[in-house]
Amino acid sequence: MKKNILILVVLTLLIVASCSLAPQQPSAPAPASGGGEAAGGSLSGDAAAIAQERSLSPDDITAALKTYLPTGVHDDYVIFASGGHSGQMLVIGVPSMRLLKLIAVFTPEPWQGWGYGAGNEVLDQGNVNGREVRWADTHHPALSETEVDYDGQFVFINDKANARVAVVDLRDFETKQIVKNPVAIMDHGGTMVTPNTEYIIEGGQYAAPLGWEYAPLSDYNDSYRGHVTFWKFDRDKGRIDQDNSFSIELPPYWQDLCDSGKLVSEGWIFCNSFNAERATGGVEKGEPPFEAGASQGDTDYMHIFDLNKAVATFKAGKTMDINDFPVISLQTAIDEGILYLTPEPKSPHGVDVTPDGNFLVVSGKLDPHVTVYSFDKIMSTIKAGQWDTDDYGVPVLALDDVKEASVEVGLGPLHSQFDNQGYAYTSLFLDSAVARWTLGGDFADKHPEEPWQLVSKISVHYNIGHLLTAEGDTVSPDGKYMVAMNKWAIDRFANVGPLLPQNFQLIDIDNTGENMQLLYDMPIGIGEPHYAQMIKYDKLSPWEVYPEIGWDPQEQAVSPNVVQQGEEKVVRNGNEVEVFMTAVRSHFSPEHVEIKEGDHVTWHITNVERAYDATHGFSIPAYNINLSLEPGEHITFEFDADQPGVFSYYCTEFCSALHLEMTGYLVIEPDGSSAMLDQ
Amino acid sequence: MKKNILILVVLTLLIVASCSLAPQQPSAPAPASGGGEAAGGSLSGDAAAIAQERSLSPDDITAALKTYLPTGVHDDYVIFASGGHSGQMLVIGVPSMRLLKLIAVFTPEPWQGWGYGAGNEVLDQGNVNGREVRWADTHHPALSETEVDYDGQFVFINDKANARVAVVDLRDFETKQIVKNPVAIMDHGGTMVTPNTEYIIEGGQYAAPLGWEYAPLSDYNDSYRGHVTFWKFDRDKGRIDQDNSFSIELPPYWQDLCDSGKLVSEGWIFCNSFNAERATGGVEKGEPPFEAGASQGDTDYMHIFDLNKAVATFKAGKTMDINDFPVISLQTAIDEGILYLTPEPKSPHGVDVTPDGNFLVVSGKLDPHVTVYSFDKIMSTIKAGQWDTDDYGVPVLALDDVKEASVEVGLGPLHSQFDNQGYAYTSLFLDSAVARWTLGGDFADKHPEEPWQLVSKISVHYNIGHLLTAEGDTVSPDGKYMVAMNKWAIDRFANVGPLLPQNFQLIDIDNTGENMQLLYDMPIGIGEPHYAQMIKYDKLSPWEVYPEIGWDPQEQAVSPNVVQQGEEKVVRNGNEVEVFMTAVRSHFSPEHVEIKEGDHVTWHITNVERAYDATHGFSIPAYNINLSLEPGEHITFEFDADQPGVFSYYCTEFCSALHLEMTGYLVIEPDGSSAMLDQ
Repeated sequence: MKKNILILVVLTLLIVASCSLAPQQPSAPAPASGGGEAAGGSLSGDAAAIAQERSLSPDDITAALKTYLPTGVHDDYVIFASGGHSGQMLVIGVPSMRLLKLIAVFTPEPWQGWGYGAGNEVLDQGNVNGREVRWADTHHPALSETEVDYDGQFVFINDKANARVAVVDLRDFETKQIVKNPVAIMDHGGTMVTPNTEYIIEGGQYAAPLGWEYAPLSDYNDSYRGHVTFWKFDRDKGRIDQDNSFSIELPPYWQDLCDSGKLVSEGWIFCNSFNAERATGGVEKGEPPFEAGASQGDTDYMHIFDLNKAVATFKAGKTMDINDFPVISLQTAIDEGILYLTPEPKSPHGVDVTPDGNFLVVSGKLDPHVTVYSFDKIMSTIKAGQWDTDDYGVPVLALDDVKEASVEVGLGPLHSQFDNQGYAYTSLFLDSAVARWTLGGDFADKHPEEPWQLVSKISVHYNIGHLLTAEGDTVSPDGKYMVAMNKWAIDRFANVGPLLPQNFQLIDIDNTGENMQLLYDMPIGIGEPHYAQMIKYDKLSPWEVYPEIGWDPQEQAVSPNVVQQGEEKVVRNGNEVEVFMTAVRSHFSPEHVEIKEGDHVTWHITNVERAYDATHGFSIPAYNINLSLEPGEHITFEFDADQPGVFSYYCTEFCSALHLEMTGYLVIEPDGSSAMLDQ
Repeated sequence: MKKNILILVVLTLLIVASCSLAPQQPSAPAPASGGGEAAGGSLSGDAAAIAQERSLSPDDITAALKTYLPTGVHDDYVIFASGGHSGQMLVIGVPSMRLLKLIAVFTPEPWQGWGYGAGNEVLDQGNVNGREVRWADTHHPALSETEVDYDGQFVFINDKANARVAVVDLRDFETKQIVKNPVAIMDHGGTMVTPNTEYIIEGGQYAAPLGWEYAPLSDYNDSYRGHVTFWKFDRDKGRIDQDNSFSIELPPYWQDLCDSGKLVSEGWIFCNSFNAERATGGVEKGEPPFEAGASQGDTDYMHIFDLNKAVATFKAGKTMDINDFPVISLQTAIDEGILYLTPEPKSPHGVDVTPDGNFLVVSGKLDPHVTVYSFDKIMSTIKAGQWDTDDYGVPVLALDDVKEASVEVGLGPLHSQFDNQGYAYTSLFLDSAVARWTLGGDFADKHPEEPWQLVSKISVHYNIGHLLTAEGDTVSPDGKYMVAMNKWAIDRFANVGPLLPQNFQLIDIDNTGENMQLLYDMPIGIGEPHYAQMIKYDKLSPWEVYPEIGWDPQEQAVSPNVVQQGEEKVVRNGNEVEVFMTAVRSHFSPEHVEIKEGDHVTWHITNVERAYDATHGFSIPAYNINLSLEPGEHITFEFDADQPGVFSYYCTEFCSALHLEMTGYLVIEPDGSSAMLDQ
């Protein structure tokens, strides 16, 4: 135990040091790496005077010129980033690092009308045991893939806090589905996709009784379990097919990130874990806290899954039901040859399959190396039946049998990405740096250096979590750009109160060898993104306007409740009132909706515009309703007219010079004699 | 009527034209104004090669160099922008145009914990007749002022959709108060402040019966009314003092923006209106739609208030009670000499008092001129008792008696701001441009041109609403920067689906005469900001960490429920459970909270960190709880343990290399024999 406490103390010191070493208030610009010439050295005239006045170094000047986009010029790449605990997703342009859009996913967002009259059914899909859980800790977005290449059709994201997965359609950047994991309350290791998006992977994290059940902590080893869930994706419907999805029960190690095999390793899935020690904490009772207890051992376990065998087992019905969801039991997974383990350096976070599918890169946060596994060696070891077992009887392949290489990269390695020149990039949380190192195997010919060696590092600011490269999770990464997703900003930006933004740093990785250049610091003051993927912009084909007038985005078809202009109406049937409305610059029709207190109102509204960007908003004050109606869009919403009075519905999206006149009166006559409201 | 329909048609054509003239997909970079030299003309070496490769014009190069901030260099100015229908506020750095932070105001926001365990009481202050209205159409932020200069202490913002005003404390960028207007369901013309922030102004918009009451539309002239509300601000308490606030009843014109007099005009308040025609719409009944009906007349009315007389009248108790709120009746306002009207060009939006307080600039959206009023002439006309009256008996000063000048600026003028060189800037919605024109009076010496004349225009992209200049609403604007708040983006950015971002364009206004330079396009994909103010960054003094450990931000004092490290505990009293917890890198204490279904839980948690940026999150899965605990912060939240099971609370803000280990088990034993959950 003493050794572990010592480790903990050392780690704590390292962590604190890495933070406190950061300059607290720089009085002068920090030159980017490689700077040195006098300001304005490569400029003449006006530009030189500006650079001089603003104390820009030569590297600052090239960074400015590499990232600046003149008006109307579009970014080359688009990042889809988790919005962290905002519960949303962020869309960011590269190289300008401008936030192009927030996509409403798990959290209500009134600009998009999400949860304020639109999308309520989708949000309700994410309820947990009837409770409206209206936020998420979004973690790892995954773009849909075709032949292990981003195809620009969908993006998925998981909610660590509540074990949910969402599907966003990239034709209209709208969330179409949320599924709640029936097996686990929480997750972590999602979402990742298989090579043709057959399955979306959702891995677990903190072990708990499956099926959201109760068991005391004293039953941890027997009753607490991990899981991995495979959600079948129906591309035609644009929805997860829950009936063809399943989970696998796992030992109560804390599963972390997963990755899917590709090319040679297609059909295999790899998931990290930590706390193979099965520590249960209890610092208040004199037990070691989780941070120490879960770090006692030198290694944790990588989980290796044969997905094809798992699917066959599921299809053969060899599953148990948990909350009406099929789960392959741990014993069945062992018996059917679905699950293997192999040790990995302590407290790993990332497991990343190289673009050729031949190697797996694992970084243990408490080990200064990345460990590279050979898929080939894993296969031959399994074929040879050469293993020990863990306490649960799961085969454990010896590290020496499956390891290809080990590269010392620095302190706190977390996650690795790849480029097109045979380099890997690993984020170093404690070093606040990114390491560039060389891959071996077929990649050895692509770079001038020896394989499996550290080439260079670049400082980032500060405490990087994940990182991403352009098309970095595909079989053909683009290189060019890397983004460091830094968790601490400290002094990087103007202070905006005790809660600071995160810092995305864009880094130019276009050169081989030692040259990486820091280009841009982007503050993220809107949640803490965990992971992100970067896709070529020209792979996206979003609609400019909805395909036809009256389009219902949830059905991706024309709604039957559309009315033509001139045929708008208000229909009463008892106390059921139905409104059929159109919106066009610059009026709603009808402009009067006169109803009675106690009426139930179903309101259909269509934006009949066909011009790009001719969006109308629609709000009803005091009724918590706001919609965003893109050109052609139709929305139906309902409410009870429980509050009498006079409410001006109006367009909330500035649409024309007469936008303020785009309004109408909802007049609700009180039921009974008194018109006075009970305030 | 035909004339009005004609106007409408012409307007519609103009609007459509202004949009469709926009290039739909530029194939090459659009050079900024003044460009023309070959790319890279003022560069040498690497920088020239980059500029060449990226086709940057000389103006692009200077724009890049004027806006780029090297890592760690702070912005000179900070914009506080309305977040539009996101219901929040945006904090943006200038000149980098980076979003530094979203401030949660009216809408729940889980990154900040707002509405997910923190701030719930503040959000509840904004309930409307018991309904939880959880979004807002935030319109016009106003920074607190001392002697008509931003003092950096507070920022206020109104919710047009629900007539609410919020107070944000700029020590911690957190919302401290929301007030719901007791008189009106909706507003528009807020918030603006008086010269020392004695009052926060909230003006009305669409007329309705006061007190949220019912009256049929046929009673419009008799029963529908406008209003302006003066909220007394208590700077010491950092709260609106509702007991010393009051409204004034106004005719059912649709009040729009307001501005406060300053210096010579201190004590007077000015509010625009439109729909002086009192049109009530009804396009579906063959009536002219509001866009035509409200535009029939050539003029609308500016409201002129003697605030000192209004305050004296309120203090003398000459008010009526509406929803227990004091309201000066229209008749009293007339009798006491509080209210005057004067005609203004049709459908005005902005009324803006010049920095010296001598002039009022009004822009009518349907008139190509700005109309400048002389405060001196207004005073002498009032003194002379020289007026007609409107239908309600309100004195109407003749336009010719109070007008100083009229400047033809272009189509669709909306709003004006000022610089330090005697220029005014007016946004032109239909022209998609900003006009620079000269002020007269004492400003005439500051610029080389004649007074009251158009100097130049700059194109913006597209359809600008408000604009802002650095410190533009104070007595001493800084010039330097102007931001065009454009409502349509169309082709400016990578397409991100049918719902497009807005476009903030940063413009350099540092030169006199014709030279304005477009510097930067910033997409706003997170709501539609209406107005914004820009303050020098060095005027802000936000806390880096909370002043003491255990700080309760709502009380701005140490909470009585703080425990020291080592004294954490769980206390049970019947089925009342109280948790006293601390958070520090990298563990919570306690790590086990074992309770029973049906318990009511009060949970106190303190972040005991003192390091800058050492924020911890805290979430309880499935219970819809997430907190953000800045260094030193204490939060108390409550919940009913109605769902048994095992829930890992964990830190949601990546705080250390052992962040994932910062977790604990909340174990809720089921009440009764079955541990199965009802799914």
